[in-house]
Amino acid sequence: MVRFIDVAHMRDWVSTVGVAEIIRGMAGYVEDDFRRWDQFEKAPRVASHSQVGVIELMPTCDGRNYAFKYVNGHPGNPSRGLQTVTAFGVLADVDSGYPVMWSEMTILTALRTATISAVAARVLARPESTTMALIGTGSQAEFQSIAFRELLGITSLRIWDTDPGALDKFERNAAGLGFDIYRANSASDAAHGADIITTCTADKALATVLTDDMVAPGVHVNAIGGDCPGKTELDAAILHRASIFIEFEEQTRIEGDIQQLDPAHPVTELHLVLNGEAPGRTSASEITVWDAVGFAIEDFSALRYVNDATKGTRFCTDVDLVADPSDPKDLFALVNAGANSLVGVR
Amino acid sequence: MVRFIDVAHMRDWVSTVGVAEIIRGMAGYVEDDFRRWDQFEKAPRVASHSQVGVIELMPTCDGRNYAFKYVNGHPGNPSRGLQTVTAFGVLADVDSGYPVMWSEMTILTALRTATISAVAARVLARPESTTMALIGTGSQAEFQSIAFRELLGITSLRIWDTDPGALDKFERNAAGLGFDIYRANSASDAAHGADIITTCTADKALATVLTDDMVAPGVHVNAIGGDCPGKTELDAAILHRASIFIEFEEQTRIEGDIQQLDPAHPVTELHLVLNGEAPGRTSASEITVWDAVGFAIEDFSALRYVNDATKGTRFCTDVDLVADPSDPKDLFALVNAGANSLVGVR
Repeated sequence: MVRFIDVAHMRDWVSTVGVAEIIRGMAGYVEDDFRRWDQFEKAPRVASHSQVGVIELMPTCDGRNYAFKYVNGHPGNPSRGLQTVTAFGVLADVDSGYPVMWSEMTILTALRTATISAVAARVLARPESTTMALIGTGSQAEFQSIAFRELLGITSLRIWDTDPGALDKFERNAAGLGFDIYRANSASDAAHGADIITTCTADKALATVLTDDMVAPGVHVNAIGGDCPGKTELDAAILHRASIFIEFEEQTRIEGDIQQLDPAHPVTELHLVLNGEAPGRTSASEITVWDAVGFAIEDFSALRYVNDATKGTRFCTDVDLVADPSDPKDLFALVNAGANSLVGVR
Repeated sequence: MVRFIDVAHMRDWVSTVGVAEIIRGMAGYVEDDFRRWDQFEKAPRVASHSQVGVIELMPTCDGRNYAFKYVNGHPGNPSRGLQTVTAFGVLADVDSGYPVMWSEMTILTALRTATISAVAARVLARPESTTMALIGTGSQAEFQSIAFRELLGITSLRIWDTDPGALDKFERNAAGLGFDIYRANSASDAAHGADIITTCTADKALATVLTDDMVAPGVHVNAIGGDCPGKTELDAAILHRASIFIEFEEQTRIEGDIQQLDPAHPVTELHLVLNGEAPGRTSASEITVWDAVGFAIEDFSALRYVNDATKGTRFCTDVDLVADPSDPKDLFALVNAGANSLVGVR
């Protein structure tokens, strides 16, 4: 049997344990895995693009565990009541090749994206940061806010979205979370005075969500939404003023905001900073950019964490996913109606 | 909700409908999909190799449906009571990016591998073929036998395996299937006089299961087991005497028995033969080789078939795999314990 965490169980787990505690726990797993970067098989995700979106597989392996995530990105989905991003994933055992755990990952991806953003910001933002601008208050916004409070101590939010309904939704959800919230009247207004600017928009286009004038010296830009070929959020001028940090160069050159730059433009992979092999922020006036696209190792960490955290609890069930004939060479016996009674088959 | 076919439901479906009828139905889907080859996204599978085996993802897409399979290959597994090959897969909707059906594919892969072998043999073997040698009587053997009876009229089997237990198992399972079966005392003895020779062994090595002297003029070789870098079954001399047919050149050059040949050695992709764009067998004395490695489009066809065939029947269930907030931008509401009662969450 394979452990299975469906949506209802994931909701139950996250609601019961809490987003804050899960993000703190997951951050440890992500940092551990990024610190042993060289042990992983790394490749750009396998993407299937259509006119309306993309479907991707994101596999990775550390020699002991194997994991992959299936994830789509369809910016037009919300207009018909569907999620922009849905995901599920599997953790498997390299030694046997058998799947170990299958999990919904729509909710889990929201948690891991917020977690890696905050893990990066912890070494890239100014340590005294307290105020974050949130440009785009869709599905990611509450998770980002909680992650930045837990890992960096962010207490003030300046929010903006072109959709007033998304701002209403965020204010409603954040009401009980204890933030000081300012509802801005433009992206520029939101960015004003912020220590950290998070951009998280879903348009599948070369958009300029953040213009150069909105980014003051010393700001850390947490750029989440530009994560696909042809999908960017930042004015290229910001990138030219900034130190740029990324997950995995081979993938981010194609998908990140740096697709706007010359392929030789210097960037730093985050694992080098976490390992002390490269500097993070070097001065209070430096502009830092975390050009996130989402990388397979983060999903690996998230699956590993949820597997460890839910094992033996009420938050997972089992599914019958692997055929298990008593003689491993006798698969046919499982389906040979003549020779086998079906009594006892669940 | 996503349709789900677990092992028990797959067993129930195959046992009830029958391997023969499923292979006939699936053959139509495979041929349809191979005939519209140009509509598919095609890439070699994404393989993660370890010392003991391989884990692979096999995605493909025709612009309307997307499918992928997870499959492992661990030759040492049977010695500890595990399957060499286990698999599962997902069919998804390109337009929304949402998964539609999740299925076990250990049993389904056995059915599709047998189906594509017989689809290929129907245009490559001599039409009057009645006798098949089966070298390797593991998990695939019964499925291959039934497929070749259904699609080609094979009635006599000459069987051989280095493991006597595997031969016993095959004879036991085939007892009710109506074949005339000869239990050979060597691979050479099995091959003697056969119209078709099927090799289906699992060793992850450059093995020579079939030597040149065993292959008489006019024989069709259905080479199933050589499907990995460093894993072959045929004496290269056989390949030099034969016309070679494959699934997808880019993948088979790396994984098939033709990895033993010069990369420029001529081979023919099967879809060309099925479409009438290339000849299949051209004379009664020609030796033909189907160098099968397993390609994503076959799994796509199998998933499409099982989805159509089981929809609305007792042979599938539903799983709660896609988070579905009433406001698609409000994922947080699903996990915000403060704002949401958990009553009703399963």
